[in-house]
Amino acid sequence: MAAGERRTGDLSGVVQLLRDGQPRTRAELGQLTGLARSTVSARVDQLLAAGLVTPAGEASSTGGRPPATLAFHPGARITLAIDLGATHARVAVTDLASTVLAEHLDTIAISDGPGPVLDHVAKVAAKLVEHTGRHTSELVGVGVGLPGPVDHATGRPTNPPIMPGWDDADVAGHLGALLGTPVLVDNDVNVMALGEHATEFADVDHLLFVKVATGIGAGVISDGAIRRGAQGAAGDVGHIAVPGGRDVLCRCGNTGCLEAVAGGRAIAAELAAAGLPALTSADVVALVRSGDVTALRTVRDAGRAIGEVLATCVSMLNPSVIVLGGSVAEAGEHLLAGIREVVYRRSLPLATQHLRIVSSRTKGRAGVLGASTMVVDHLLTSGALEDMLG
Amino acid sequence: MAAGERRTGDLSGVVQLLRDGQPRTRAELGQLTGLARSTVSARVDQLLAAGLVTPAGEASSTGGRPPATLAFHPGARITLAIDLGATHARVAVTDLASTVLAEHLDTIAISDGPGPVLDHVAKVAAKLVEHTGRHTSELVGVGVGLPGPVDHATGRPTNPPIMPGWDDADVAGHLGALLGTPVLVDNDVNVMALGEHATEFADVDHLLFVKVATGIGAGVISDGAIRRGAQGAAGDVGHIAVPGGRDVLCRCGNTGCLEAVAGGRAIAAELAAAGLPALTSADVVALVRSGDVTALRTVRDAGRAIGEVLATCVSMLNPSVIVLGGSVAEAGEHLLAGIREVVYRRSLPLATQHLRIVSSRTKGRAGVLGASTMVVDHLLTSGALEDMLG
Repeated sequence: MAAGERRTGDLSGVVQLLRDGQPRTRAELGQLTGLARSTVSARVDQLLAAGLVTPAGEASSTGGRPPATLAFHPGARITLAIDLGATHARVAVTDLASTVLAEHLDTIAISDGPGPVLDHVAKVAAKLVEHTGRHTSELVGVGVGLPGPVDHATGRPTNPPIMPGWDDADVAGHLGALLGTPVLVDNDVNVMALGEHATEFADVDHLLFVKVATGIGAGVISDGAIRRGAQGAAGDVGHIAVPGGRDVLCRCGNTGCLEAVAGGRAIAAELAAAGLPALTSADVVALVRSGDVTALRTVRDAGRAIGEVLATCVSMLNPSVIVLGGSVAEAGEHLLAGIREVVYRRSLPLATQHLRIVSSRTKGRAGVLGASTMVVDHLLTSGALEDMLG
Repeated sequence: MAAGERRTGDLSGVVQLLRDGQPRTRAELGQLTGLARSTVSARVDQLLAAGLVTPAGEASSTGGRPPATLAFHPGARITLAIDLGATHARVAVTDLASTVLAEHLDTIAISDGPGPVLDHVAKVAAKLVEHTGRHTSELVGVGVGLPGPVDHATGRPTNPPIMPGWDDADVAGHLGALLGTPVLVDNDVNVMALGEHATEFADVDHLLFVKVATGIGAGVISDGAIRRGAQGAAGDVGHIAVPGGRDVLCRCGNTGCLEAVAGGRAIAAELAAAGLPALTSADVVALVRSGDVTALRTVRDAGRAIGEVLATCVSMLNPSVIVLGGSVAEAGEHLLAGIREVVYRRSLPLATQHLRIVSSRTKGRAGVLGASTMVVDHLLTSGALEDMLG
């Protein structure tokens, strides 16, 4: 078996096939999975009993009794999806198709540390589950996105620069104990990439999700799956030196980093120096929306700097879609225009001829959609479904 | 099933398991593949009959009759591996473990066009197979690496800049007709990455292979597999703009490209301008080996320029190993030193704390080893083995 590949059971195989929403007959399931007729029957019966699969009417037939079809029933269980930022916590309850059933957006301070933040989030989450009329016993898992590097295998943050007190914190253990269900943790941008990919670009195999907010980071989808790299640090583009970048000191200690030149705080500082009322990314977006010419020009310049770095990423990874998300990306076309200008000028024609550079379509929900997707993917690829149904 | 994943048969599954060279009992094979005892027996019998698996003595036992073990027999079939450069053709016959049985290195001119070059290579290959005492009917396939972008799905080059007359040429069809066996074609650097990974770094999941020759290119291994991107152009780093790079015109039409600043021809031109006898990468390497101070400094500067681009790739992909190959890389430590200096200065600690930057260990054979690996991987993941054994 190839490295990184994991053998999954027949139950997961059947659900994976039905996950696209299309009903299928037992015969079709046998054909597509390569399983024997008797095995398909046994697995389908197990899934029917658990409510994960339901009868879905009859297939069309050329004669004789038309065969019954079966469909995935995503409402059978639920997930909790938690998107934590420096100052926000978005919590959602979703079904197994990552449809949001209930959602809550909170202001928090991540710098309060893991104990207070996670205790608060767990309380909000439990209430939210109750609010949907469901029960935490129906959870198949909790997905969490954190604003810093995360060791995905252990679910612990690794020296996260904007999360004082969180280094090596047992986020999965802490939340798991409070909510009584497995918890998966990843970097927020990886989770956003997963969410945008699963819900809006499922047919795209090579996608970069770039978050432009106070910080700048990317999530890499290649051959249909998220690529985290050796230490889970893949996509950490905020501290790449911008070609011709100014000599600005970055919080990482280097100078001329992308984040220090084109991040939300950097843009706000530049606008403030020009006498404009800008402190945060939201202020920058407001100035752009008001049509302030200095703000337009500054945001477009930030786009150009981001484009310099993305041009290299395009040559390296040859994606077919780059999605821009994050609070600064809400400035819209002006940021996109700067990025496009440089990427299309600096990359080879073969890599850009079919490349689309677009704004996020998930309206701020990429994080929770991705956290939910991560949980369901894990359920169906780790053997967890087999364990759950015995 | 995840995108890009392909269902393979039980036969391939058994061979994949045994491919690591460790003998296993039928019971172990059943346990590891999840197949029923009777299925394992049927598959093993098929593989024994085809000679792909052989009895390998008895396992140790705690009592009773010790069970017999089975091992992969890589000598049962052969592959042809062809590594084409601008001026060389290296052809090898290998077994299914990519051990080279015979090898031939030729001078060619790729600019002669696909007809003459492929006819010549096919003749050399057929003779080489004969020379090993084998027959072309024993071939499971031919793997080819070409010095330009290749659409891996069709095996056709896509506007390859240094291969006049090869655009959209049916390389796989042409060679397949001459040799009577399936042909897989890929970009030379992807093939080199595969070869270096399979033979020297099989335990590493995230690796970049960087070829520094007349041109500069990279092969990306992520989560254990080569990542080609949407058009097969991933790793095309030669035309990335070097931060602070000089205003040199590149053959691609842009200025300041990595290749135009740090490729073998660029270094040779710089040395020639300084009055040194340098025309090719080989001349550069000879000058470095002779200890010429100007050559040492120029190669180290080229390493720094390559390091600027690789620092971005490290942040983006978080590999644990970068392997340097290609004719200029034979200049050794001086090129490496320049690369290391910049990569370790410009990347985040999390991404570089376990990063190794090393010279290729395959002694010019990465291409043929990779071409052979590509053929065997395809045999075991495409259903081709199942087709072959009926």
